[in-house]
Amino acid sequence: MRHLLDTKTLGLDEALQILDVAEDMRDTQSREVRKLPTLRGKTVVNLFFEDSTRTRISFEAAAKRLSADVINFSAKGSSVSKGESLQDTAQTLQAMGADAVVIRHGASGAPQTLATSGWITAGVVNAGDGTHEHPTQALLDAFTIRKRFFGAESRGRDLAGLRVTIVGDVLHSRVARSNVWLLTTLGAHVTIVAPPTLIPQDVSAWPVEVAYDLDEAIAAAPDAIMMLRIQLERMNAAYFPTEREYSRRWGLDAARLHALPEGSIVMHPGPMNRGLEISADAADSPQSTVLEQVANGVSVRMAALYLLLSGERDAAAAREPEPASRARRPEEDAR
Amino acid sequence: MRHLLDTKTLGLDEALQILDVAEDMRDTQSREVRKLPTLRGKTVVNLFFEDSTRTRISFEAAAKRLSADVINFSAKGSSVSKGESLQDTAQTLQAMGADAVVIRHGASGAPQTLATSGWITAGVVNAGDGTHEHPTQALLDAFTIRKRFFGAESRGRDLAGLRVTIVGDVLHSRVARSNVWLLTTLGAHVTIVAPPTLIPQDVSAWPVEVAYDLDEAIAAAPDAIMMLRIQLERMNAAYFPTEREYSRRWGLDAARLHALPEGSIVMHPGPMNRGLEISADAADSPQSTVLEQVANGVSVRMAALYLLLSGERDAAAAREPEPASRARRPEEDAR
Amino acid sequence: MRHLLDTKTLGLDEALQILDVAEDMRDTQSREVRKLPTLRGKTVVNLFFEDSTRTRISFEAAAKRLSADVINFSAKGSSVSKGESLQDTAQTLQAMGADAVVIRHGASGAPQTLATSGWITAGVVNAGDGTHEHPTQALLDAFTIRKRFFGAESRGRDLAGLRVTIVGDVLHSRVARSNVWLLTTLGAHVTIVAPPTLIPQDVSAWPVEVAYDLDEAIAAAPDAIMMLRIQLERMNAAYFPTEREYSRRWGLDAARLHALPEGSIVMHPGPMNRGLEISADAADSPQSTVLEQVANGVSVRMAALYLLLSGERDAAAAREPEPASRARRPEEDAR
Repeated sequence: MRHLLDTKTLGLDEALQILDVAEDMRDTQSREVRKLPTLRGKTVVNLFFEDSTRTRISFEAAAKRLSADVINFSAKGSSVSKGESLQDTAQTLQAMGADAVVIRHGASGAPQTLATSGWITAGVVNAGDGTHEHPTQALLDAFTIRKRFFGAESRGRDLAGLRVTIVGDVLHSRVARSNVWLLTTLGAHVTIVAPPTLIPQDVSAWPVEVAYDLDEAIAAAPDAIMMLRIQLERMNAAYFPTEREYSRRWGLDAARLHALPEGSIVMHPGPMNRGLEISADAADSPQSTVLEQVANGVSVRMAALYLLLSGERDAAAAREPEPASRARRPEEDAR
Repeated sequence: MRHLLDTKTLGLDEALQILDVAEDMRDTQSREVRKLPTLRGKTVVNLFFEDSTRTRISFEAAAKRLSADVINFSAKGSSVSKGESLQDTAQTLQAMGADAVVIRHGASGAPQTLATSGWITAGVVNAGDGTHEHPTQALLDAFTIRKRFFGAESRGRDLAGLRVTIVGDVLHSRVARSNVWLLTTLGAHVTIVAPPTLIPQDVSAWPVEVAYDLDEAIAAAPDAIMMLRIQLERMNAAYFPTEREYSRRWGLDAARLHALPEGSIVMHPGPMNRGLEISADAADSPQSTVLEQVANGVSVRMAALYLLLSGERDAAAAREPEPASRARRPEEDAR
Repeated sequence: MRHLLDTKTLGLDEALQILDVAEDMRDTQSREVRKLPTLRGKTVVNLFFEDSTRTRISFEAAAKRLSADVINFSAKGSSVSKGESLQDTAQTLQAMGADAVVIRHGASGAPQTLATSGWITAGVVNAGDGTHEHPTQALLDAFTIRKRFFGAESRGRDLAGLRVTIVGDVLHSRVARSNVWLLTTLGAHVTIVAPPTLIPQDVSAWPVEVAYDLDEAIAAAPDAIMMLRIQLERMNAAYFPTEREYSRRWGLDAARLHALPEGSIVMHPGPMNRGLEISADAADSPQSTVLEQVANGVSVRMAALYLLLSGERDAAAAREPEPASRARRPEEDAR
């Protein structure tokens, strides 16, 4: 695998490979010494143009468990804020020896640009770009669903026959988009539930069922219900009803929790707004997978970094930018 | 040891165990290669809700010397500032594999809540909470006193017969509180000296002598005098005289330094306000233990992390949140 | 080598030693596992009073490749901003076990003060101080020139016979100063080109040729041309013409790039203001060494840290501040 940029173009075989390697990684995490020497001598840079402590430390923990060196690069206070371009920043990081760049950026498509521009040869992992994608979140969600439903027999399994319902601000959610593409690739049936103002305009091109009423969606007996985080800064007349109204109509409260079928699971990417999109009862119920999702996030990110960095990528070549023939005075070989 | 939350409830045996292990750790720090493999594969999270570079890097250095992975989590710019609860933050950190959480928090009691709530199984170290306690500071102070007075014969010794005088803003000082409890547990006689407005109201319940006049307290010939840091932001009419007046009456200047008995030591937790609570003469005198306190801080924190993390704690179990029986479709085992 | 504070007082032998060790370090960076065990157990502190993500992560990567532990200490939010002195900060860091302190400071001379005050025994590396010096930048520039012109035969070579032209805000540039001293020590002929307001007043004491017209300087056929970064905040009537005027007269555009002699190289310390002091054509041309400079920066900093820390410095002694005789009660040995 060269890069991990999205789940929309991720094939079924690639997706299953990541999930299966993540199973192996997860197994190592219950050992007494859970550190692996696999990526010793490799450097992973966390290049974060947006704050996200949770995602950053999940990648940091994943890289360190594989013995990679981790360098955190927050764009705040860096030369990026002095106007340096993404190109110069990325090339600088690679010249310093970055083998993988984990990038979070406010602009949809920035990781794609980084990976396909020819600027760098390092592997690129999208850790969230604008409203576009957040592929490792979707992979950890799929991993969590598979593990809950198939346990020790998860390896190699897809999610055919499972019904997943995603609830909330789908319009602005990269988590929702990445899940829609990945879960359907894995064979699940996906329903999205949201206020009409928060359904994307191009939803007819999505491989999903659309619903507006949460109670009806729950009555349809999903295997997993995934509550999206409400971005309170978007709580305004244009998109949202009031918090109270939102919670009443699209929040997972105790009554709705009990209306879910037996054995279904409750998911949330975190951090939760307890009392808004999810009640404390639901968040802390045995059906909740919130903490498993976090734990599985480290395993999935270990798998992604492993697949990107343990291959035959010729990183050394990328660190030798000068022409081999440029010895002595340059008259003979310059252009 | 499960957690290190305070010194008030720390027994004599536990305190001596930490101090004695810290002696071992200190010995390793003068070796050519002072890194120990002890905590390889363990993850220590520094969860700092208040800035404190000194304390943070002391814990960071301690953890790294023991080969633990360290993840720094500053609450600024994190989802905590977006309203995430302490519970969700702590559970998230543990789900990512944190074996110990070193927490500094503005609210007295936050580490206790974290440790006893049942939210996490990771070990909790209090790195300062409100005006409550800062136990590793008191332990490094006790270690420093013991080392200065008993040298190579320190191991196993308590501080019986030694007289320690603590001077300054006792009212707001978690350092003073932790020292009062620990030093008296270790058998020392403690005197506190402060302006009347900076003596706690419940001081009659403290196992200390109270004085208001620094010169009289010095005439009583303490073995160690500990100058607390003045928080300049509290310099106002309600609590404090002017800086000049404070320095004149409760500062350790050259004259008072010379009035101290031969062989006594001068302590300060740092960072010092030179010229305010302590003069440069006193800070840099051979009697000053300021830098030993810093160096011993790393040894004491190594000891605390070692005792918390090398035990039989079943961290693995904590990372397996799902029911073991949850395999295949959930109809049969759901609740 | 005890410290690396400047290039003005760096002798030819020392300079060549650093460059040659950097060659060895560079060779290790193309290996499959490029991490060396050399500085295992050593602690390098990045003490940055000014933001500089690029320089900080270059030192961080260098130290980690040598297996040192790295602690980043940003002066923002630290007790330094509460008024702690440089002395106390430095002594604190050393007491915690810092073997080397990499310092960036806004005040010219701060690293010198740190190294020569007797406050600490740790090795000090100047990572940029005021308008004074930035020695590792000059060393990586010299390394880059040597490598481009002598290739595999670089080891042991000086730069005699090469002509280097430095263009831009020389007045405020520590990069220019460090390069002037180092390059002339290595035997190169240096020309500086700048608007008259940006030439230092004491330039007659510098071992350089001074020019004001960039086209004339290019016509003189330099082997290397080094474009300094424009600090836009200095763009005002007192020093500078407008951006457009600056770019027209002192910027390296496509026409000037083509007027350079064949085989000459184009250097920039980064981050570049593309379109201001350097055009995209020049920045991305095969003659540009911008990314080699970044890559070589890690090798040069590995060399500097190695030479500072692998010697016979008795770091252990520095961590034992108390008098050896201070055992038992202090009556007998106190002063």
